[in-house]
Amino acid sequence: MRIVEVRENTLPLSSPGQNAVIDFSEMTVSVVALMTDQVRGGRPVVGFGFNSNGRYGQGGLLRERFIPRLLRADPRTLLDEAGRLDPARTWGVLMRNEKPGGHGDRAVAVGILDMAVWDALAKLEEMPLNQLLAKRHAGVAADRVWVYAAGGYYYPGKDLDKLRAEMRRYLDLGYTTVKMKIGGASLAEDRQRVEAVLSVLPPGGALAVDANGRFDLERALAYGEMLSDYDIYWYEEPCDPLDFETHAAVARRYPGRIATGENLLSTADARNLIRYAGLRPDRDVLQMDPALSYGLVEYLRTLDMLGESGWSLRQCVPHGGHQLSLGIASGLGLAGSESYPGVFEPFGGFADEYPVQDGYVRLPASPGIGLEEKAALYPILRDLIA
Amino acid sequence: MRIVEVRENTLPLSSPGQNAVIDFSEMTVSVVALMTDQVRGGRPVVGFGFNSNGRYGQGGLLRERFIPRLLRADPRTLLDEAGRLDPARTWGVLMRNEKPGGHGDRAVAVGILDMAVWDALAKLEEMPLNQLLAKRHAGVAADRVWVYAAGGYYYPGKDLDKLRAEMRRYLDLGYTTVKMKIGGASLAEDRQRVEAVLSVLPPGGALAVDANGRFDLERALAYGEMLSDYDIYWYEEPCDPLDFETHAAVARRYPGRIATGENLLSTADARNLIRYAGLRPDRDVLQMDPALSYGLVEYLRTLDMLGESGWSLRQCVPHGGHQLSLGIASGLGLAGSESYPGVFEPFGGFADEYPVQDGYVRLPASPGIGLEEKAALYPILRDLIA
Repeated sequence: MRIVEVRENTLPLSSPGQNAVIDFSEMTVSVVALMTDQVRGGRPVVGFGFNSNGRYGQGGLLRERFIPRLLRADPRTLLDEAGRLDPARTWGVLMRNEKPGGHGDRAVAVGILDMAVWDALAKLEEMPLNQLLAKRHAGVAADRVWVYAAGGYYYPGKDLDKLRAEMRRYLDLGYTTVKMKIGGASLAEDRQRVEAVLSVLPPGGALAVDANGRFDLERALAYGEMLSDYDIYWYEEPCDPLDFETHAAVARRYPGRIATGENLLSTADARNLIRYAGLRPDRDVLQMDPALSYGLVEYLRTLDMLGESGWSLRQCVPHGGHQLSLGIASGLGLAGSESYPGVFEPFGGFADEYPVQDGYVRLPASPGIGLEEKAALYPILRDLIA
Repeated sequence: MRIVEVRENTLPLSSPGQNAVIDFSEMTVSVVALMTDQVRGGRPVVGFGFNSNGRYGQGGLLRERFIPRLLRADPRTLLDEAGRLDPARTWGVLMRNEKPGGHGDRAVAVGILDMAVWDALAKLEEMPLNQLLAKRHAGVAADRVWVYAAGGYYYPGKDLDKLRAEMRRYLDLGYTTVKMKIGGASLAEDRQRVEAVLSVLPPGGALAVDANGRFDLERALAYGEMLSDYDIYWYEEPCDPLDFETHAAVARRYPGRIATGENLLSTADARNLIRYAGLRPDRDVLQMDPALSYGLVEYLRTLDMLGESGWSLRQCVPHGGHQLSLGIASGLGLAGSESYPGVFEPFGGFADEYPVQDGYVRLPASPGIGLEEKAALYPILRDLIA
């Protein structure tokens, strides 16, 4: 088994509308094809990977550092004793000559290649990723995974009617839990927005809110107080993701669920969150995104760290809305996975054949992560290896 | 005043020999030229910047994200009320549409451009950078800055004689404090290496040691105990730079000076170091590298944070061995700056006309950071704008 070529392409990301956090007109995504010399079902095995939502494509780092390093390595150093592609050893090769600390774009670039490695491995083993992970970790893959609809962005001219209509669309798509942005307006306006969304939720429906790390302590506490007047599913990223002291102060005062972690791109950073941010293992939600944080190899280390720290994997709901997180959630027994209906297309979202039902989505039985099961994504993958 | 063009070139970094931390044969450096429409002394004003030692060139991020974002911005958003180039506003433009957290390669890329912005600003003001900084911060620039020689790398065939000879060369160059790597050999061998270097130091000479973050707690403590048998100037990066708990445990047991920070690439990370790593403001040394961590604009925030946390700027000795850190050390009153004789050439090192004397180096009087005062570097800068 050897990797014969790795191709990369950086594409603009088309998303409808605007949001107050990131101007999507600038946003890009890198997609890679990791081409092997193996054949399954009469076709060459190719693993695909891409970066997750919210960070940029990494064509520069991939072409300048990581793809050349991978292709220069002795192919045997990428395999386990049985001669199978070994994601952990491949990861070690990718991270040769990299210093500790500085977990940023590099984590995204390595995550893209790691996704392609796992996709290739699952295809080589002729199993869906979730089944492969369950087998390796002596568990049983869940048939379906809880997902929630992340949206509720601010944009000019978006009034309460439009916000309610957006949320009704998510409910009509089969979601039961929806998420909206807060902090881009005054607290009084945001209270109205929260009430507007709550008013359209059916029985059993739930609303989470996301401040995108923008509050200082005073505003985080003021919002916490406002949110305590309602039944809110979680309060996400009240403050800067690395300001653990402010997180801890919010956690002491806000009795509800706090969610955070999507902007911590390494096990070392996640460990500091667990150590210092005052989060409560009985309720809070950890959203580290495997694709953004050095891939599944590093995420497995993060999950080990969580276990050693007394946290259940049922507190994990990874960020990103992509099938890698979905497969991990199913295979390793996480609580669920994010979803961004209509955003981050065609990379986000799940297999076409399985619509969301009652807040859950099923996983395809095809080998790999299942990226080929999205008709809008497939041509991009096919073009890359044409 | 407007920026008319930004050019970037990524170069291989030639360094003699090998070291155990980073294989320098892979190492690259990005150099940028920020070309303005202004003229001083009959010549167009151009600011130059490059990335510091130990991290890779950032051509990809610069060309894909940061240079286009800078050139797309309304030129007036880069200026202060008096119409002067404003590094902080320029920094804000560079960081538009970037999410919090994930402080890695992006911090290096922005640092490169920030260096060029400060170089251009000082040239526009017709002042050396250290004088400009002293003026802006109501201080007096130091005539000379303490520097130490970082070396003592491991490489195959390097015995104690060669290690002693290397250190004698640094002393002959005018340094009084030298630094060597530890942790790449057994503790017993490293004890011999430490004793060998101590044996060649003159009266008033000093030895610092650097573990490059490679120890777990047990080994960090064992080395601390060994080092306590000697008069060691500082014990650098005993453990992973983000493992603040291990740092704190070492600081409780090791009475001598601990130095760390070069792998913390943002104010947010540096603040967590100060909050959680148990470092002692009366002795420990902070080595955050302005060039690697979003540039001087962010480093000024880090220095403000240190002041608010009860730390003196005299505890700061920035990593990197480049003239930006030297100019900051002089202009803002830091304790000193690193130096890598013969490594990171021709980007590292100081103005040719001022050799190191008694452990100190003087700064040139020419406008800007002084990069043109290095004959080996000047052709690279000149070629970029040719």
